[in-house]
Amino acid sequence: MHKLSTLLFSLSILLFVSNASVQDFCVADLTLPAGPAGYSCKSAANVTTADFVFTGLRKGGNTSNIISAAVTPAFDAQYPGLNGLGLSIARLDLAPAGVVPFHTHPGASELLLVVQGTIVAGFVSSFANQVYVKKLEKGDLMVFPQGLLHFQINGGGRTAVAFASFGSANPGLQITDYALFANNLPSMLVEKTTFLDDAQVKKLKSVLGGSG
Amino acid sequence: MHKLSTLLFSLSILLFVSNASVQDFCVADLTLPAGPAGYSCKSAANVTTADFVFTGLRKGGNTSNIISAAVTPAFDAQYPGLNGLGLSIARLDLAPAGVVPFHTHPGASELLLVVQGTIVAGFVSSFANQVYVKKLEKGDLMVFPQGLLHFQINGGGRTAVAFASFGSANPGLQITDYALFANNLPSMLVEKTTFLDDAQVKKLKSVLGGSG
Amino acid sequence: MHKLSTLLFSLSILLFVSNASVQDFCVADLTLPAGPAGYSCKSAANVTTADFVFTGLRKGGNTSNIISAAVTPAFDAQYPGLNGLGLSIARLDLAPAGVVPFHTHPGASELLLVVQGTIVAGFVSSFANQVYVKKLEKGDLMVFPQGLLHFQINGGGRTAVAFASFGSANPGLQITDYALFANNLPSMLVEKTTFLDDAQVKKLKSVLGGSG
Amino acid sequence: MHKLSTLLFSLSILLFVSNASVQDFCVADLTLPAGPAGYSCKSAANVTTADFVFTGLRKGGNTSNIISAAVTPAFDAQYPGLNGLGLSIARLDLAPAGVVPFHTHPGASELLLVVQGTIVAGFVSSFANQVYVKKLEKGDLMVFPQGLLHFQINGGGRTAVAFASFGSANPGLQITDYALFANNLPSMLVEKTTFLDDAQVKKLKSVLGGSG
Amino acid sequence: MHKLSTLLFSLSILLFVSNASVQDFCVADLTLPAGPAGYSCKSAANVTTADFVFTGLRKGGNTSNIISAAVTPAFDAQYPGLNGLGLSIARLDLAPAGVVPFHTHPGASELLLVVQGTIVAGFVSSFANQVYVKKLEKGDLMVFPQGLLHFQINGGGRTAVAFASFGSANPGLQITDYALFANNLPSMLVEKTTFLDDAQVKKLKSVLGGSG
Amino acid sequence: MHKLSTLLFSLSILLFVSNASVQDFCVADLTLPAGPAGYSCKSAANVTTADFVFTGLRKGGNTSNIISAAVTPAFDAQYPGLNGLGLSIARLDLAPAGVVPFHTHPGASELLLVVQGTIVAGFVSSFANQVYVKKLEKGDLMVFPQGLLHFQINGGGRTAVAFASFGSANPGLQITDYALFANNLPSMLVEKTTFLDDAQVKKLKSVLGGSG
Repeated sequence: MHKLSTLLFSLSILLFVSNASVQDFCVADLTLPAGPAGYSCKSAANVTTADFVFTGLRKGGNTSNIISAAVTPAFDAQYPGLNGLGLSIARLDLAPAGVVPFHTHPGASELLLVVQGTIVAGFVSSFANQVYVKKLEKGDLMVFPQGLLHFQINGGGRTAVAFASFGSANPGLQITDYALFANNLPSMLVEKTTFLDDAQVKKLKSVLGGSG
Repeated sequence: MHKLSTLLFSLSILLFVSNASVQDFCVADLTLPAGPAGYSCKSAANVTTADFVFTGLRKGGNTSNIISAAVTPAFDAQYPGLNGLGLSIARLDLAPAGVVPFHTHPGASELLLVVQGTIVAGFVSSFANQVYVKKLEKGDLMVFPQGLLHFQINGGGRTAVAFASFGSANPGLQITDYALFANNLPSMLVEKTTFLDDAQVKKLKSVLGGSG
Repeated sequence: MHKLSTLLFSLSILLFVSNASVQDFCVADLTLPAGPAGYSCKSAANVTTADFVFTGLRKGGNTSNIISAAVTPAFDAQYPGLNGLGLSIARLDLAPAGVVPFHTHPGASELLLVVQGTIVAGFVSSFANQVYVKKLEKGDLMVFPQGLLHFQINGGGRTAVAFASFGSANPGLQITDYALFANNLPSMLVEKTTFLDDAQVKKLKSVLGGSG
Repeated sequence: MHKLSTLLFSLSILLFVSNASVQDFCVADLTLPAGPAGYSCKSAANVTTADFVFTGLRKGGNTSNIISAAVTPAFDAQYPGLNGLGLSIARLDLAPAGVVPFHTHPGASELLLVVQGTIVAGFVSSFANQVYVKKLEKGDLMVFPQGLLHFQINGGGRTAVAFASFGSANPGLQITDYALFANNLPSMLVEKTTFLDDAQVKKLKSVLGGSG
Repeated sequence: MHKLSTLLFSLSILLFVSNASVQDFCVADLTLPAGPAGYSCKSAANVTTADFVFTGLRKGGNTSNIISAAVTPAFDAQYPGLNGLGLSIARLDLAPAGVVPFHTHPGASELLLVVQGTIVAGFVSSFANQVYVKKLEKGDLMVFPQGLLHFQINGGGRTAVAFASFGSANPGLQITDYALFANNLPSMLVEKTTFLDDAQVKKLKSVLGGSG
Repeated sequence: MHKLSTLLFSLSILLFVSNASVQDFCVADLTLPAGPAGYSCKSAANVTTADFVFTGLRKGGNTSNIISAAVTPAFDAQYPGLNGLGLSIARLDLAPAGVVPFHTHPGASELLLVVQGTIVAGFVSSFANQVYVKKLEKGDLMVFPQGLLHFQINGGGRTAVAFASFGSANPGLQITDYALFANNLPSMLVEKTTFLDDAQVKKLKSVLGGSG
């Protein structure tokens, strides 16, 4: 036992030498500048278990809105422990008739898991505009390859809940309608680049808060 | 409208030119050789919606075993649509007193989501052997950085269910006890490299089916 | 000189030993299966200078179509020498009033270079739907970050030509209108997931060759 | 319409939550420290369209020099909007008899596009010293795999212009002659490591401003 | 010669333009925050040859301890010149009967090179717990794939020395015994997650300085 | 014990399910096509310990040649177990006055470890042609960033031996002299692109076996 206890000292030396090392993780310090690979790391001395745990998805978001749906992200900006680890998640709540409109995630593929109700989900391939649509039951999974247009709709009469995993701590989210209509891009420009009619563009601009 | 329909032809040409292109996805053809980046891609002509959907996690595995637990993976080998997309998932079912013993995933970080019951989960940092343990409720998340030892235990009186997402289509799984005892590594070698007593090693070797 | 010539033999041995090595490049053999990282490599013995040169962009595509524009890609499927090298290019020809409608490249950022005429180009950020639009003159560059919606329009009275570089040999291309309307996705589903009116959806489906 | 406008509020919440997120892009702030993946990101609030546009390549560099050539880079240090996006570009101007001497880019492959005149370009494979040389016309492309020695020479009687795209925002540039002769590496060391004669080394050291 | 000397000026311009560029290397400044990709870069003006050279492995560590072994790392924290370059090294000194107990490197594969004596090394695959063990002589190499459990033991009667290369500047090191016993993880939890007997756990906790 | 033995069955199921999975490693099958990420994987059933061990560097190469040096690579083509693991190694033997002439590795950084004698090593930065040279003793390390020109010379009166680790299984090797003179690139072209004199070029072409 005496010799064994020497081990403690010996390996501690090794660990001490490693003291300044980039750690096994890099919990985001949101107050420091970010770089192309993510946020700067919080000092190791200040990292606690709480950094690795996230309780913000216990409840879904408010679905009392026009799409009868809510998306609640747990990306690195909300959940700093994910920084640099290459994955994140979001919660989807879809009231009856709820819909998450066509959107893309520029930075990662998505893996959808239905945990309550049924959801009709689909994506469109960039090759030949092939459509892949499926009604998913509780426990079912569907994957949406990176950057491709996809949507989710409540497929039944009760609220559906799903969790979407992403292969990036910051997958991004671009809702097509918002990108096209909820800004000051001149209507004429939108019409020219979407083939949509003038009335249609102006209607959606008005509804979504766009101008021009 | 006449000029608009010409568009169909024009853009089709473009898409036709792209015909042989590596697609937006690479559904695994498990019959072809794999490479360092994953499996070879199934021919585009044979890809269907079914390749992107997985229903194998609707039900949990059988927990009538000594650990009162079951882990059901949906990695690329089980779910070929994930090939090359950088993420995967597994279902954990933990009966009361169930435990997923210490293990690592050599190829990816893990994001655990509790969907039923409560789970006590934890990991050990490679730096200073710091332990991060937390009792997780339904809807809670905990992240385990790549390659670090971690475990999950049922934290309540009823069956718990969780889903573990991974930032790789093939994260791997090395259960420490199995790696140490469930093979023909000579007992003396195991003892020397683990500091465990001879009786302890032989007991676990016997239980886990190891020899030597 | 005698001793110098021995060098030839000595280093040749080294190079011979390396004989089976993965080469400095991996020219695509389009007849072999692809994988997540690209196509299989053509045998070194069959690689010639022609594999690294591409003359298919000397002339622009035919712009006598409704968008008065043509996009001619030189991705790995058209230009196998790019396989595995992480970059590719495409030629844009925009007759007066020509437009490349809103689209994304799921797999890479794009760097646009105007070589003739003027082009109005823009993209929408996934964050706050911020719009970045600019009229570009000959010699100007504009970058469109990966996966974000962007467009190009002829900004003058004469034909404009540009080259778009990509940070991937297979960036992909998803034209939003085509993804939404040029397939058999039921109109009702499109309307629900885009907020577009029924008449608008049916009109574009008809024009772009979609059904349902 | 009333319900539709609620959508604005609902999705805005989502976007607000994402407020601190690493953005879709990471425009370089050259005043902050860089890291292995590139520069720190400029604050989102200060990013404008001008960050994504670069007009510095409208005109070529001055070719009134011994090589009758000029290389004008638009890498991340000159064009901060490219930071983290994995691509960059440079303009080559070659007066008659102009030459870009043998060089390498340690960090990326290069795709050369001739836009005026003719250029003879070539590279040497690290395998068996195979040479790939081609006379390129306007509109032609040639790719130089990462890190390999290559050169460009004006192939006609008039000024040639080309644009070289790179699969990195910071590809680097090492001109062999400069690396060998334009510094204080002792002549004897250069001779020993290049097999060049003493007179040759001293002559080039003198011309290129080297010492020793 | 006159024209040649103009070259100096011409290319210098080019190099000056590149002045602010991310360099060919990124020597770590350990006083600045790290990020997911490594440390911030030291200012180019302060980089010297000493940053790229490391003499700390000339002598082995002290092996007068219970494992009769010493591991001396040269990771980026000890050798800042490695930052961002994707490789590092460590020296192993094994007195007779010396052993480096079972451990993993979460962040990289390891390539072991024996330079003195003989070493018995082995690893366990995460697939089917297959064991790969070999007695290595001077000059022999053995590779341990990323994240897998492996060990090294002196295989002869004299001190053995080896160098372990890693494909990351920060591979990490998790010694299983330390991770399990050298902290305050409650004994009952350790027993439940390892199947080890209470006495065994308490014995090793005591020896390795753990509590609980 | 009875319940414990059930565990064997339970976890075996899990492992069986993973049966077709891409493994923890991908030993190269040199008879199958390679891809951009490396060689195809050997079938798991045929992998043995011998695949992970390499004894080819026990002895140095023959240094009875003009450079009094030998480089013996253990890249993936020689050592298939390294395929996909992101590291490799080579042995350098330098007789007195031995030299490894200026060269680059296009695909990886190099970490040199001297194990016998002394070696003068150096590299040139692509930025400002800064030279970093150092005389290394036994046990010393020096790192050469990816793609930069570097050399090694015996620094003493006896044979020196070193091992060079690389952060890629296929780093490549381009010896500048060989690239410039040991092929059929016309002398005039070499002169124009290197500023070397005609006599110098022809002399080295003759010595190194080049023509033209």
